[in-house]
Amino acid sequence: MVFNYPNGHPSHYNEASKQKMQEKDRSTNFANRGMRFEEAINQSNQYYRNHDIAVVHKKPIPLQIVKVDYPRRSAAVIREAYFKEASTTDYNGVYKGHYLDFEAKETKNKTSFPFKNFHEHQIAHMEQCIKQKGICFVLLWFSTLNRCFFLDSELLISYWRNQKNQKKSLPIAVIEKNAIEIYPKVAPRIPYLAAVDKHLQAKEKT
Amino acid sequence: MVFNYPNGHPSHYNEASKQKMQEKDRSTNFANRGMRFEEAINQSNQYYRNHDIAVVHKKPIPLQIVKVDYPRRSAAVIREAYFKEASTTDYNGVYKGHYLDFEAKETKNKTSFPFKNFHEHQIAHMEQCIKQKGICFVLLWFSTLNRCFFLDSELLISYWRNQKNQKKSLPIAVIEKNAIEIYPKVAPRIPYLAAVDKHLQAKEKT
Repeated sequence: MVFNYPNGHPSHYNEASKQKMQEKDRSTNFANRGMRFEEAINQSNQYYRNHDIAVVHKKPIPLQIVKVDYPRRSAAVIREAYFKEASTTDYNGVYKGHYLDFEAKETKNKTSFPFKNFHEHQIAHMEQCIKQKGICFVLLWFSTLNRCFFLDSELLISYWRNQKNQKKSLPIAVIEKNAIEIYPKVAPRIPYLAAVDKHLQAKEKT
Repeated sequence: MVFNYPNGHPSHYNEASKQKMQEKDRSTNFANRGMRFEEAINQSNQYYRNHDIAVVHKKPIPLQIVKVDYPRRSAAVIREAYFKEASTTDYNGVYKGHYLDFEAKETKNKTSFPFKNFHEHQIAHMEQCIKQKGICFVLLWFSTLNRCFFLDSELLISYWRNQKNQKKSLPIAVIEKNAIEIYPKVAPRIPYLAAVDKHLQAKEKT
């Protein structure tokens, strides 16, 4: 059984749906490896953890639990629950003493990244983390172009906050100029920590 | 409806059960305020966030989702899901550029804190985070004694790893000697960041 939760991503909490998702994904395209962006990031995080490079996890899906059954001699079964809007970004963790906090989003657009992918509460959370000197960013995947970018949240926020007066999306020209491009490989699939290193080096210089 | 999930804590994902829990909790004791330890920590985190002091969240409960219905003209309903063992600790976040990662546990014991409160995967996760220079600790609540302690994970881990040759619990004498006592107050309920500051100062000296 396959289902999506509100952010449109498939659940990776259900092995059955996961397998079907992956079969289905063979038709989709991620760097010619038939993999969804989120799954590629999860695998990258696993790679980084297994090699003691960083500890980053995707947060569980927040659910509003309403009804739970307790069958005798077996595990509690949740019989009614609803998807809740997350109050934070999807990923956080620690890398060489740095707090990492990020969101991963994909678009089929070729010319710009729609702001509708980012919600007020995520922007507000990133602003809070930046105040605490966390390293906040977004990983942007242009699925049609097969291009991946690391974008500092500060830039995203400044554009996102101005969208009323401006465009409803971030032009790829702006992204190409200000973001760090990430070139997917085999392991890790999305070597985003290389971009984090570049970002940290650039911050030290300023 | 009130229910507990495997770690024995009440769910805070269901407002109805939350209210009933809190009514029920008036009979229990947390620093004479009729509050559960976990709820007190969640309120403390909210206080720290609201005052731009730190950004710490409790992670959602990990669930294995099996069946979801899509009623017409209404939200998706999860009809079958199971509680999963978490692969990390319950709390993490950022404070003045430091990555914080911790677990909060309570016991009714008066003389020691049972190791069974901590699981292999949590210990392993804390070890990974320490390697990445994260600030890892546990908040221990002796509900009968009304005493709260900040304990550096490194000490917990060293004792936990030796439990085969040693005791199955951490004697309160060891905790009193090596941990930082936290005195609950009104706001924040559990001022654990004061203990984090002391811990960081002690680390700088060494």
